Amino acid sequence: MTSQASPVTPLNLAQKLISDHLVSGDMLPGSEIALRIDQALLQDVLGTLVMLELEAMGIDRVHTQPSVQYIDHGLVQADNLNAETYLFLKSACERFGVWYSGPGNGISHPVHMENFGVPGQSLVGCDSHTTSAGALGMLAIGAGGIEVAMAMAGEPLYITMPRIWGVRLEGRLPDWVSAKDVVLELLRRHGVSGGKNSILEFYGPGLDELSAMDRLVIANMGTEMGATTSVFPSDESTRRFMSARGREGDWQPLAADPGCHYDVEEVIDLSMLVPLIALPSSPDKVVPVSEVVGQPLHQAYIGSSGNPGYRDFAIVSSMVKGRSVADGISLDINPSSRQVLSTLIQEGYLGELVASGARLHQAGCNGCIGMGQAPAVGRNSLRTVPRNFPGRSGTREDSVFLCSPETAAASALAGVISDPRSMQMDYPRINEPEAIVVNRDVFAAPLPIDQARLKPLQKTDNTPALPTLRPLPNRLEIPVLLITGDNISTDDIMPAGQRVMPYWSSIYASAPFTFEAVDAEYARRADASRNLGGHIIVGGHNYGQGSSRENAALVPRYLGLQVVIAKSFARIHWQNLICFGALPLTFIEDSDADKFAQGDTIIIENLHAQVATSPTLEAEVAGKGTLRLHHGVSERQRELLRVGGVINHLKARQV
Amino acid sequence: MTSQASPVTPLNLAQKLISDHLVSGDMLPGSEIALRIDQALLQDVLGTLVMLELEAMGIDRVHTQPSVQYIDHGLVQADNLNAETYLFLKSACERFGVWYSGPGNGISHPVHMENFGVPGQSLVGCDSHTTSAGALGMLAIGAGGIEVAMAMAGEPLYITMPRIWGVRLEGRLPDWVSAKDVVLELLRRHGVSGGKNSILEFYGPGLDELSAMDRLVIANMGTEMGATTSVFPSDESTRRFMSARGREGDWQPLAADPGCHYDVEEVIDLSMLVPLIALPSSPDKVVPVSEVVGQPLHQAYIGSSGNPGYRDFAIVSSMVKGRSVADGISLDINPSSRQVLSTLIQEGYLGELVASGARLHQAGCNGCIGMGQAPAVGRNSLRTVPRNFPGRSGTREDSVFLCSPETAAASALAGVISDPRSMQMDYPRINEPEAIVVNRDVFAAPLPIDQARLKPLQKTDNTPALPTLRPLPNRLEIPVLLITGDNISTDDIMPAGQRVMPYWSSIYASAPFTFEAVDAEYARRADASRNLGGHIIVGGHNYGQGSSRENAALVPRYLGLQVVIAKSFARIHWQNLICFGALPLTFIEDSDADKFAQGDTIIIENLHAQVATSPTLEAEVAGKGTLRLHHGVSERQRELLRVGGVINHLKARQV
Repeated sequence: MTSQASPVTPLNLAQKLISDHLVSGDMLPGSEIALRIDQALLQDVLGTLVMLELEAMGIDRVHTQPSVQYIDHGLVQADNLNAETYLFLKSACERFGVWYSGPGNGISHPVHMENFGVPGQSLVGCDSHTTSAGALGMLAIGAGGIEVAMAMAGEPLYITMPRIWGVRLEGRLPDWVSAKDVVLELLRRHGVSGGKNSILEFYGPGLDELSAMDRLVIANMGTEMGATTSVFPSDESTRRFMSARGREGDWQPLAADPGCHYDVEEVIDLSMLVPLIALPSSPDKVVPVSEVVGQPLHQAYIGSSGNPGYRDFAIVSSMVKGRSVADGISLDINPSSRQVLSTLIQEGYLGELVASGARLHQAGCNGCIGMGQAPAVGRNSLRTVPRNFPGRSGTREDSVFLCSPETAAASALAGVISDPRSMQMDYPRINEPEAIVVNRDVFAAPLPIDQARLKPLQKTDNTPALPTLRPLPNRLEIPVLLITGDNISTDDIMPAGQRVMPYWSSIYASAPFTFEAVDAEYARRADASRNLGGHIIVGGHNYGQGSSRENAALVPRYLGLQVVIAKSFARIHWQNLICFGALPLTFIEDSDADKFAQGDTIIIENLHAQVATSPTLEAEVAGKGTLRLHHGVSERQRELLRVGGVINHLKARQV
Repeated sequence: MTSQASPVTPLNLAQKLISDHLVSGDMLPGSEIALRIDQALLQDVLGTLVMLELEAMGIDRVHTQPSVQYIDHGLVQADNLNAETYLFLKSACERFGVWYSGPGNGISHPVHMENFGVPGQSLVGCDSHTTSAGALGMLAIGAGGIEVAMAMAGEPLYITMPRIWGVRLEGRLPDWVSAKDVVLELLRRHGVSGGKNSILEFYGPGLDELSAMDRLVIANMGTEMGATTSVFPSDESTRRFMSARGREGDWQPLAADPGCHYDVEEVIDLSMLVPLIALPSSPDKVVPVSEVVGQPLHQAYIGSSGNPGYRDFAIVSSMVKGRSVADGISLDINPSSRQVLSTLIQEGYLGELVASGARLHQAGCNGCIGMGQAPAVGRNSLRTVPRNFPGRSGTREDSVFLCSPETAAASALAGVISDPRSMQMDYPRINEPEAIVVNRDVFAAPLPIDQARLKPLQKTDNTPALPTLRPLPNRLEIPVLLITGDNISTDDIMPAGQRVMPYWSSIYASAPFTFEAVDAEYARRADASRNLGGHIIVGGHNYGQGSSRENAALVPRYLGLQVVIAKSFARIHWQNLICFGALPLTFIEDSDADKFAQGDTIIIENLHAQVATSPTLEAEVAGKGTLRLHHGVSERQRELLRVGGVINHLKARQV
């Protein structure tokens, strides 16, 4: 334990949580640390690979308690594949000792927080928005599925010790301004990579009026800044949240020590905020709504893990009560969970939504992840979701804005983009009821281990065993098959949506879709490279941002990817590449990126020795000269690269 | 007017309705009659072609009032296509003077009946279940889109005068037996083609306890017997139904004349009925539920136009109240309309459904038409929908049963197929509330004609103009490209589901899917025949049953189809073939069908003269000899064949 973690030094809350879970490493920003993981969260379209990884590792029963498998992404069921994925996942839950939350229960993040979240515990999930549970005072981190599988197997989670960024909230939010505007303000200030290698820790008097679910909105979308996670204290709001769900026994107060230090200090005066909106097609293209008032509207979308709270729907209901959605506008209501839906019914809010002309959809992620509700090309869609990367809605040339429920609802009523402050009514203040409707029977609890061991996995052709990956060679002489721009997201690498997601459970079936919107020929070229030593991708800044989907690393790796050289990487994708035995390298001089052309051959000699002996290595661009590249690879990670990734590593250890 | 329609002869209700709308023809079963059409109903995936047909015909404003375009089929929106279809249809509604009921309002049949149905009026719709409105005492007929377009253009609807089949209902239904069991009993007795060329007219004391929506269940699924339509009297139940919706002013009493005659007489003693179920994969494979009790269950599906009533959901709610859906079973609740959803909320039924673990989906057709909720291969799905043709659920090798909401709910609670009479509770009797929640603003009314004329159609690449069809040649020497078995449905010819339906608005984009599950190579062969004189299909009995989708005729016709020779045809498809200029022929001896092999060349000389001079014609099977075939083509239809179909015909008239 470092001096920072010493009991005499006042710690911020993030440091306390890390210290409580530290297995090894120094809590110095930039150092690799290993964390003990208490809980695990899986969603369906990435959970399939995690279960196949547990199988490949030969796991008998998971260590993280609870581990919960949610069905929230692949809900369309256009053919047999989704339903068969559910059967496979349920069988895997029974086999490995995992809770199963079936389709209809809702989105993993709010449902987990409502039913399983415990302040002070650590949580890892194979979904980038796992950070949401930071709202409850959890240390909640999104990771690649393989890292989640390792945690479920009882291994620690390895992360780079982040800097702790204290965000002091002062004042109180004006009418018509809410939690989404707070996190949009952070994105406006710092951009989609401004939070990298950071934990955003929120504190201050402004917290008092933010409910646990409001805090989730902020913790959820902190991910869009590239933050490792976000953390909120566990206080009276947290207690009320848990008490309403019959779980006060799991509550404990948590806060930073008085006088603690933050690596970065920031203040947001809530009283100065105005309704904000992120323009297409990046979460950080934030402007005041007032700048786009009057622009045409096609769709307004309420829900997702980006605004999942009871309040977020109830306020929309209060706004549309007795009115009708404007002619031709689709107001899409996506309940985030069964509990939220039940409570909206119980408290009388759902009826007003339906009567106004809104469309009520099933509980789940739905259009946020391109599973339905895709807008027409070029038509403006205002959404309360966390992301608006191009095409994520399911429509190639989409025009998606991110905003608060208030802004979306005001716009749906007006028929054009509108500032909610122009509503001719008092601002509705919503109080959550004292007791929330709960039916815990809708979750299937883990089986006793003696029963579990008898359960076979219900596999199909669409859940084939994972490919065996070969170690990274010591000498590479392979071509650059793709050069990309900045901010390539994992959506760009492995498309989502109804067309592709049902195949995510199969590396082989997913492969042809890789990078299809960036370069439709990449997958074919890459596949051809697979048995010829593989290939290299050259990227820009923030390569691999967005969703934690490990298949964005695993599938290119299966297709022969050996090395990615980028100006910078998003955290989870960088981890994923190494976990599957591909080497991420960064330019020391960004301008070196200009030296590459597609088809160039890159030669790296003595790769493993170079990585072991220096933080940089030398590579030759055939016919163009040599350059030095940086790698941030730890000793542990070197070993992963040497054996071809985490699964090979664990298998070798078991022999 | 024939003697049958004379005022001194007592008429049954169907005869009265026909007589009231008769434009020309003799009301003798088997004769072609022309009917004046009051109202028209479109759904989205077939409405697109109707609107393109109105455009091709040069229509300025529709004559049928109201004409209503519903968005209820293509609700998934996996990409931009569905949303752009809505925009196209809304623009066409504005242009042509049609009401627009957007996504979220619900399924055309119950919504039309609730909001626009008028006892005594005639209705034509481009959906085979348009017959549903017969529940209200309407003369409601499903037809190919082109016939609907003609009716909207002010032309009469031509049908073959059906025999009138009087179904006397006696006694009262036992507990746990409901309207679905009544129509399943009819299917058990008569099969999927037993009602062909018939109108089922229901009467008798057993009607008293059947609400208007119960009657809709029966009228809806009469279509599965191949009936032209079903008719119910307009009585006190009908009045209550309309009064609860603020529409009592549109009500009038209607009944058969005392002492009237029916062409066929049938009696059902309701008190003798038991819960019934149609086994996979035909609506007439009906057995008592008791015969399949205990079989495994995967899914139970509530909703669709086959059980759309408030009661159908409320009774399920009453059954699951305080209980939980069995582990691993998906209980899918598909509200049929916004009004039903609103009323379920208002009366407290929705909360119980949600709390039990059911999945609540958006209002619409959804899984009934393969748009979501597709089951796993071979797993039993119990559905309250009207059809279980193979693959219609979206899953190729599906196992779909048809049953009442009571049977579906009892099974979902038990986790295996169950007889609802085994429920340990009193049978819940549901009374509809006196006043139903109504917000008429959710329908967009037609524009005044001066505004309408200025509205352009919002077309895209996916709504191309229709192909121009060539007249049927006078001499054919063309190959048989496909030979099918009995009961080929229009689902077999033109697949539905999320994968294909978004393309239905384009004949060209739909073409590659034609007959794909029957013969994946047909479309390619047919396309090659297109400029070589075309081709022939040889079918079995009841060819073209099921959905009214005209693209099942138009697309093969575009691909070169000239003649279909079958043992018998389903009514709407037979009409559709002629409307698009293809000639349907029937075998005089069924055994003649055995003479054909795929690839045989058929030669028909002097085709038009042969059709004009005799009800049969001679055809030669090259190298095998000649045979005589029957055609039922009227003089009017001969003219359609001569010019290449209805659109060419109307265009020629306008010149």
